[in-house]
Amino acid sequence: MATYVNPASARTDGTDAIHREVPPEQQAVEQRLLDDVVASFGGCGDQRLKELMVGLIGHLHSFIREVRLTEEEWGAAIDFLTRAGHITDDVRQEFILLSDTLGASMQTINVNNQAYQGATEATVFGPFFVEDAPRIDLGQDMAFGAPGEPCWVEGTVTDTDGRPLAGARIEVWEADEDGLYDVQYDAGKRAGRAHLFTAADGTYRFWGLTPTPYPIPNDGPVGQMLDAVGRSPLRAAHLHFMVSHEGARTLVTHIFPEGDPIGRKDTVFGVKDSLVKRFEQQPAGAPTPDGRVIDGTWSRVRFDIVLAPGDV
Amino acid sequence: MATYVNPASARTDGTDAIHREVPPEQQAVEQRLLDDVVASFGGCGDQRLKELMVGLIGHLHSFIREVRLTEEEWGAAIDFLTRAGHITDDVRQEFILLSDTLGASMQTINVNNQAYQGATEATVFGPFFVEDAPRIDLGQDMAFGAPGEPCWVEGTVTDTDGRPLAGARIEVWEADEDGLYDVQYDAGKRAGRAHLFTAADGTYRFWGLTPTPYPIPNDGPVGQMLDAVGRSPLRAAHLHFMVSHEGARTLVTHIFPEGDPIGRKDTVFGVKDSLVKRFEQQPAGAPTPDGRVIDGTWSRVRFDIVLAPGDV
Ligand SMILES: [Fe+2]
Ligand SMILES: [Fe+2]
Repeated sequence: MATYVNPASARTDGTDAIHREVPPEQQAVEQRLLDDVVASFGGCGDQRLKELMVGLIGHLHSFIREVRLTEEEWGAAIDFLTRAGHITDDVRQEFILLSDTLGASMQTINVNNQAYQGATEATVFGPFFVEDAPRIDLGQDMAFGAPGEPCWVEGTVTDTDGRPLAGARIEVWEADEDGLYDVQYDAGKRAGRAHLFTAADGTYRFWGLTPTPYPIPNDGPVGQMLDAVGRSPLRAAHLHFMVSHEGARTLVTHIFPEGDPIGRKDTVFGVKDSLVKRFEQQPAGAPTPDGRVIDGTWSRVRFDIVLAPGDV
Repeated sequence: MATYVNPASARTDGTDAIHREVPPEQQAVEQRLLDDVVASFGGCGDQRLKELMVGLIGHLHSFIREVRLTEEEWGAAIDFLTRAGHITDDVRQEFILLSDTLGASMQTINVNNQAYQGATEATVFGPFFVEDAPRIDLGQDMAFGAPGEPCWVEGTVTDTDGRPLAGARIEVWEADEDGLYDVQYDAGKRAGRAHLFTAADGTYRFWGLTPTPYPIPNDGPVGQMLDAVGRSPLRAAHLHFMVSHEGARTLVTHIFPEGDPIGRKDTVFGVKDSLVKRFEQQPAGAPTPDGRVIDGTWSRVRFDIVLAPGDV
């Protein structure tokens, strides 16, 4: 009799509960097909492509067999992909939203940013980075008029041995209090983003905005999926960082305010405990670290960044 | 330490070779994310939808983790899906082609047409069936002028106990010798297709065409994929059947000529050994079963059809 074997993972234990309910004659038919499909990639000269395709096919067939996919459900999947393709254009990418909301984007980030003892964790890049954000000096404001509560951000950039990294480049970007990035108003607008460099002692500081949650575009098939399964389209509030230094692994990450009700329910699964930071609320008129007088309330947060070595 | 667990299949043996190379700290990060993604579907009220989504996510994450998907490869996948979406319209369905060429369509057919002792096997439906094919009487020609070598097709329709099924409805359709279906010339054209009914003794017979191989549309991303992995876009030559009778499971299948060089390399994996039939070549002028005189060569094939009970 045919034992269920997933060629992607070379498991031969046949422990799958669903498969045990399928009679051997039927399992043989399904296994024979899978064998034929895998064999059809036997002539692929690109070994990596072959590995990817065979892995994909193993999981795709296991999925269909395990859930006993109906023809109607198969049709719904084809229809979903078709609608996702049709809503996708130069400024709307439904397949990335799909990957994000299934955690596939974040898992790819994880796989490519292997945990390194003591280094700051990575998270998703997101679609709103631009190359030409203005440079600011230490302590300057990256809001450039974007509306929101001012937030004093400070910290250090070090290597995993605690040595300060001088001149590390820090890119920061975030949405305004209405949950919108500058480029969502106008592709040429630059506000709520900047780059700066750490001081000789590895420290940095700047003014930004206290982050607020915002929804991913949810008027398409991905939004319908979230709705059908009872999930929110909201991203946890966050402030983006990209930090680079010669000899260090470039870090793409966010920080998230402690106490955000979205938190781990972040619809793209970007939140990691180590990236949740205390944004201390300050009353109106409280003196700022740089002696400014701010009319309303403001907040402050500390984010000490540790870069992994560049060769990991 | 985190043991690798695929929530779709509830395996806990951790036998995956690739995963054993990933350090426990990193595995914990990856597993934590998967747990969060699965948990996000916890509020889904539709239990079947929840089962499908959790199964899909388990396999999607296992795939990414097992192959250690790079960010560039992830981007290529997004680009592939985007191009597939953009080439898809009312008459071109690239996602179905993708499903077909990965064997996912055929596996779905398998799952929904469980092998039944002695019953004829099912295969893919394909995109070229139409509802309003003309009715022919027993022994008549379904080619209606479609070019190709004439083929005499005959057989019986019975249940799994060998009892003849009288008045079973048989739909037949096929491509012409140029590999094209009637509707590919003109949506309103009807040739190379018909329906007929079995006689009181369960027998049937008709004239059709000897089947020839034809390529699936291969000028899009799926064609590029086939090309990149060294696969042909050709379908094995075939003649489509859909056979129905009250109290029997409707059968959607093909028959395939023995000796077709494409054979099991059929690009949509529709071929099953039991569906490969001997099409006997006849010399020009050979007398036909119904006493016709045919100018050129012709062929003949026998296909005895066994329908499973309708309640399986
Ligand atoms: Fe963002
Ligand atoms: Fe066909």
